[in-house]
Amino acid sequence: MKMHNFSAGPSILPQEVLKKASDSVLNFNDLNLSLLEISHRSPNYVAVMDKARHLVLELLGLEGKGYSALFLQGGASLEFLMTAYNLLPLNGKAAYLDTGAWSAKAIKEAKMLGNVEIAASSKDKGYNYIPKNYKIPDNTAYFHCTSNNTIHGTQIKSFPEVDALMVCDMSSDIFSRQLDFSKFDLIYAGAQKNMGPAGTTLVVVKESILGKTERTIPSMLDYQVHISKDSMFNTPPVFPVYVSMLTLQWLKDLGGIEAIEKINNTKADLLYNEIDSNQNFSGTAVKEDRSHMNVTFVLTDDSKKEAFDTLCKNAGLSGLKGHRSVGGYRASIYNAMPLESVQTLVSVMQQL
Amino acid sequence: MKMHNFSAGPSILPQEVLKKASDSVLNFNDLNLSLLEISHRSPNYVAVMDKARHLVLELLGLEGKGYSALFLQGGASLEFLMTAYNLLPLNGKAAYLDTGAWSAKAIKEAKMLGNVEIAASSKDKGYNYIPKNYKIPDNTAYFHCTSNNTIHGTQIKSFPEVDALMVCDMSSDIFSRQLDFSKFDLIYAGAQKNMGPAGTTLVVVKESILGKTERTIPSMLDYQVHISKDSMFNTPPVFPVYVSMLTLQWLKDLGGIEAIEKINNTKADLLYNEIDSNQNFSGTAVKEDRSHMNVTFVLTDDSKKEAFDTLCKNAGLSGLKGHRSVGGYRASIYNAMPLESVQTLVSVMQQL
Repeated sequence: MKMHNFSAGPSILPQEVLKKASDSVLNFNDLNLSLLEISHRSPNYVAVMDKARHLVLELLGLEGKGYSALFLQGGASLEFLMTAYNLLPLNGKAAYLDTGAWSAKAIKEAKMLGNVEIAASSKDKGYNYIPKNYKIPDNTAYFHCTSNNTIHGTQIKSFPEVDALMVCDMSSDIFSRQLDFSKFDLIYAGAQKNMGPAGTTLVVVKESILGKTERTIPSMLDYQVHISKDSMFNTPPVFPVYVSMLTLQWLKDLGGIEAIEKINNTKADLLYNEIDSNQNFSGTAVKEDRSHMNVTFVLTDDSKKEAFDTLCKNAGLSGLKGHRSVGGYRASIYNAMPLESVQTLVSVMQQL
Repeated sequence: MKMHNFSAGPSILPQEVLKKASDSVLNFNDLNLSLLEISHRSPNYVAVMDKARHLVLELLGLEGKGYSALFLQGGASLEFLMTAYNLLPLNGKAAYLDTGAWSAKAIKEAKMLGNVEIAASSKDKGYNYIPKNYKIPDNTAYFHCTSNNTIHGTQIKSFPEVDALMVCDMSSDIFSRQLDFSKFDLIYAGAQKNMGPAGTTLVVVKESILGKTERTIPSMLDYQVHISKDSMFNTPPVFPVYVSMLTLQWLKDLGGIEAIEKINNTKADLLYNEIDSNQNFSGTAVKEDRSHMNVTFVLTDDSKKEAFDTLCKNAGLSGLKGHRSVGGYRASIYNAMPLESVQTLVSVMQQL
């Protein structure tokens, strides 16, 4: 049975990428060797890493603007710590926007290293909206926000202008919509939503902002160390980086972020329209802040749960369960999700 | 052409593991979904992580002895830091055995967190031997050593009895030989030599030694956090852990460490005998400390380099170049390396 994979992450990847990835495990670049068993310093693999880093800057429109792209390990969770290690000066201050579970985790880790203020929070309403019109405290070293909240289904549509370095966790919506990425000084993203499989973390950092905290930074947590070694300070996560490169190439061939944004808007509009017009369903996020990546909704009548779940299962719809902390449903419709799968979901919603 | 892969890491994996890994990228467990696109919290993947952790303790003979096995990220390089964070008390002291480039890196990171003494070093002779009969300073919190030195081709044959916690970086020889693993309190190993592909790091830790440093440990660096979440504090490196599980299962099916050690000894003896009896070659490590995983040697007459390299290439021998910091040749003959490949190398050496 054809499956429609709405998993929130790790999540759907393009079929042609999966095919090439599978082939590489048996025979990479016709070397008669597996990608998994060659040196990361061999020319064939160095070319993969170089291409992946280059594609990131090209797709984000950041070439020649003083940025470096790194493929690290540890997920966004380790970036919560690295952000503070690299950017929070001793006795300095950072401001965080608290828009969900992942923002809260970022705040917790940063607080271990210094003074962190919450610029605004939407926790009062279960994180179902994005705060606006807040002020960043004076003398803030950096402002940190989460562009898309996977669990709560909200997304920042307009980023604030701040008089501080701009740091953004874009784990779940990077490469999904056009933004002026040069307004950000540090962007990071776990690969396993819109870029690749679990196991690598993308970091895009403006090089000129580094080296100013007066901290002793452990090597593995120091962006400057990774930049100086072309993202190969130690053995990189070879396969996850390769699959990310393939996905970035797929996106470029498709027309880049401009092209995928149109498709993403079509998918999101189709699904939100159904939620708003079908009396069996109700969206959980405030309308103006709705995510185009993670569509969260609930049944208006819980007694229909079994019937809806059965319809979904019979149609091959997978991964629709809401996050264990909030319940309900969540349809993750990342870049690689075909329109056809969203149409199938809408058709199932109409059958209920 | 059949290739014989002597790469030092990432390195050879069993063919049957590569086949299953390749299949899983297209269709995992007959779910009609790729392993790369399912939730790490789905029952099918949780079973993979549980099995991998269980196999580690079973193969090492550590079941029911208070140990926990974790599959983390960041390689041994991040463990250099985590070791000190988790085990070096504020104002405490650690002792390190300096047997090569990787030991030196471990020492550098630990020094950022506290007082580190070098128990002994073989740097005086280019790390071509393992120091013996050294003393560990009194009141040492832990003693750290590197069991096998990939670059220099040396291996600790007999571990010291120490009055401190015993920590060992076994990245390049774990699961290759029988040891009383219960004498170690913390073992770590990057997967990409004897266990799996790059992208995950095995940590085996005795739970009772943790939580005693009086340090505030960032979540991602805290072994107790990872233990409390069954090695799923955040999204794990899904594919590298799966391939590691397959390799551990392969080893168990083959008869475990006892069986593979016999094969490893046969391979190492064959190759070292050739090096010692063939006047064209000379081993670089002191005989009694020779590694059974990484066999380092040089040509006695450098003018024969081109001829030897051509013979190797024509026979499909790959990955024999010594580490860029020391030169010469290095044949890495990890668990998955078949005897046939070592025989082919020996035959090529005899042709020179």
